[in-house]
Amino acid sequence: MNDEYYMKLALGIAQKGRGYVSPNPMVCAVIVKKGRIIGQGYHRQYSGNHAEIEAIKNAREDVAGATLYVNLEPCCHEGKTPPCALSIIQHKIARVVIGTIDSNPLVSCRGMNILRESGIEVKTGVLENDCRRLNEIFFHYMETGMPFITVKYAQTLDGKIATAAGDSKWISSDNSLKFAHKLRAQHDAVLVGIKTVINDDPELTVRLVRGRNPLRIIVDSGLKIPRQAKVLQNLSLAKTVIATVKNANDMKFQNIASTGARVITCDADDRGGVDLKKLFKKMAEEEISSILIEGGAQIITSVLKNNLANRLVAVIAPKILGKGIEAVGDLNIRELGLAKTLSVNKVLRSKEDIIVDGRFILTDKKYF
Amino acid sequence: MNDEYYMKLALGIAQKGRGYVSPNPMVCAVIVKKGRIIGQGYHRQYSGNHAEIEAIKNAREDVAGATLYVNLEPCCHEGKTPPCALSIIQHKIARVVIGTIDSNPLVSCRGMNILRESGIEVKTGVLENDCRRLNEIFFHYMETGMPFITVKYAQTLDGKIATAAGDSKWISSDNSLKFAHKLRAQHDAVLVGIKTVINDDPELTVRLVRGRNPLRIIVDSGLKIPRQAKVLQNLSLAKTVIATVKNANDMKFQNIASTGARVITCDADDRGGVDLKKLFKKMAEEEISSILIEGGAQIITSVLKNNLANRLVAVIAPKILGKGIEAVGDLNIRELGLAKTLSVNKVLRSKEDIIVDGRFILTDKKYF
Repeated sequence: MNDEYYMKLALGIAQKGRGYVSPNPMVCAVIVKKGRIIGQGYHRQYSGNHAEIEAIKNAREDVAGATLYVNLEPCCHEGKTPPCALSIIQHKIARVVIGTIDSNPLVSCRGMNILRESGIEVKTGVLENDCRRLNEIFFHYMETGMPFITVKYAQTLDGKIATAAGDSKWISSDNSLKFAHKLRAQHDAVLVGIKTVINDDPELTVRLVRGRNPLRIIVDSGLKIPRQAKVLQNLSLAKTVIATVKNANDMKFQNIASTGARVITCDADDRGGVDLKKLFKKMAEEEISSILIEGGAQIITSVLKNNLANRLVAVIAPKILGKGIEAVGDLNIRELGLAKTLSVNKVLRSKEDIIVDGRFILTDKKYF
Repeated sequence: MNDEYYMKLALGIAQKGRGYVSPNPMVCAVIVKKGRIIGQGYHRQYSGNHAEIEAIKNAREDVAGATLYVNLEPCCHEGKTPPCALSIIQHKIARVVIGTIDSNPLVSCRGMNILRESGIEVKTGVLENDCRRLNEIFFHYMETGMPFITVKYAQTLDGKIATAAGDSKWISSDNSLKFAHKLRAQHDAVLVGIKTVINDDPELTVRLVRGRNPLRIIVDSGLKIPRQAKVLQNLSLAKTVIATVKNANDMKFQNIASTGARVITCDADDRGGVDLKKLFKKMAEEEISSILIEGGAQIITSVLKNNLANRLVAVIAPKILGKGIEAVGDLNIRELGLAKTLSVNKVLRSKEDIIVDGRFILTDKKYF
């Protein structure tokens, strides 16, 4: 068996941590000795053991002289757990095969160098693209200091999210709703605009699948949210942040803050609404590494227009409405060549619906 | 091997006739004796031998006592070729397994009855749905007296066929263009509106794949077509019909007819344009069993609004334009439940594009 074989294995197992380890990356380590796997482990949850420590702990025999496969460079700094590189050295592992170097400035190349300096054979860049893709959220967050932004909506084949009269229940199938909840569980936060709260009154929690509830962010520059809105209930199960441009002296501010939701004052954009880029930056500083944007059209349009979106998940119902409310409004694009373009990762069938899952090709950034 | 096995085989071979046998159906016959296939044949081209005759002719041994599998009921009338049922009886075939009964009123059930009356064991309805689907054009044409209408367009993910300024070259990839030519070869006629001729000046012929050129139909109520339009050239390779509401005394009528294209006067609809339903009916009477509609937005909208479309092929480029020209205009749909709905047969990836191929679910008609 070659190095790629064991790396692929590690990648498959690492995914089990999805939705539980954020903002940490998903990592798995596999220990191989004389052609046999003698131990494996993965990072199960935030603040739990790192994968390398788990793998060494789980090993069925002495790991001295073995090869350790890990999709991400072992850490070398004292964090919530002791540094993995140190443990690898102490256990006399002979060879370490690394998928990709860590982008975290506290680690980057240092973990690898420490291993090499103690005489361990180190190989890097095995299935590197796959390793980067698995932890695309982590890498984006580390490299840009911004949360990874996923835009998700359900539309008809002709790009409508509701009839002209606003009828939008339900464009997509039950099955696709389950998929939407899975997406929520995979993001640190979910965000909608105030109009979506007023029109649809969503809970924005994870109910149809297992998983953590994301932080709920409501963009509400004018603080129009009704006190009885579902996102202001059950705050012990899912936290809610209301992003506004009003300040703390405002009566409405105090009224909504009294529900237990956190109200934050944001800078305004040139139209007097919440400046989304600055809001995202602020959230990143609070360790929100990913945000799922679920609508409405105004928020989605603003995010796309400002090139803030990294991923698009469009659930397409095989229906044609003709006139209706569009998912995306005017983006000021006058030439076809300037259209926002996706690299499509997956096209899924979800009962009658078609789910297109892609990453925006940003011309000004290195991307997968 | 069971009956379904041989029927599936016949279905696979029958498809080879696609694009060459229309308005006849695609048919294949497989002859099996003592568990071995001793002969097979398919309908290769319009006015050529029927499948049953070909299979008997190709048989490597005496077909007496054998079982003949055929996806469509054998004919019983003298057409361009002698009746197949008669040949089956003469060659002492013992058993006939039929996929589906013919809708042609000259045949329907009569072929089957003649076989039974001469003592042949007949089984029908084997993989019936698949057999009907293979020849969906033929059945639709026979059962409704109207051509099977396929609407095809390339759009962005948000349903636009061009920028607001009209820039539409090219929304889809080269690969999808090849797919479009294949579709042309599979239809008896291709139809566009005059605006598409004036803006894009298409040839509407089959060039990127092998296949017959379809009849070119241009809907041009006001006879605005320029004499130098590509669809008025090379009329010996592909015929062109200009459908107008003007009559033969009109100067423009005579001017365009002088190019060699056929100009036909159609009834007008309530807005003074060509009544498409009546045009389709007229084409059906001339043995046009299928029409591929390639645009533009006005024709597509009219066809969808009047429930004239049977199939939709949407080539979706993974791009978002925001504002732009929509593939489909106002359909007068006010409720989500009344949206035109497709049953999706296939979702294909064509380089970066996604091709959605579906059939409209018509509530007022029995359909696949």
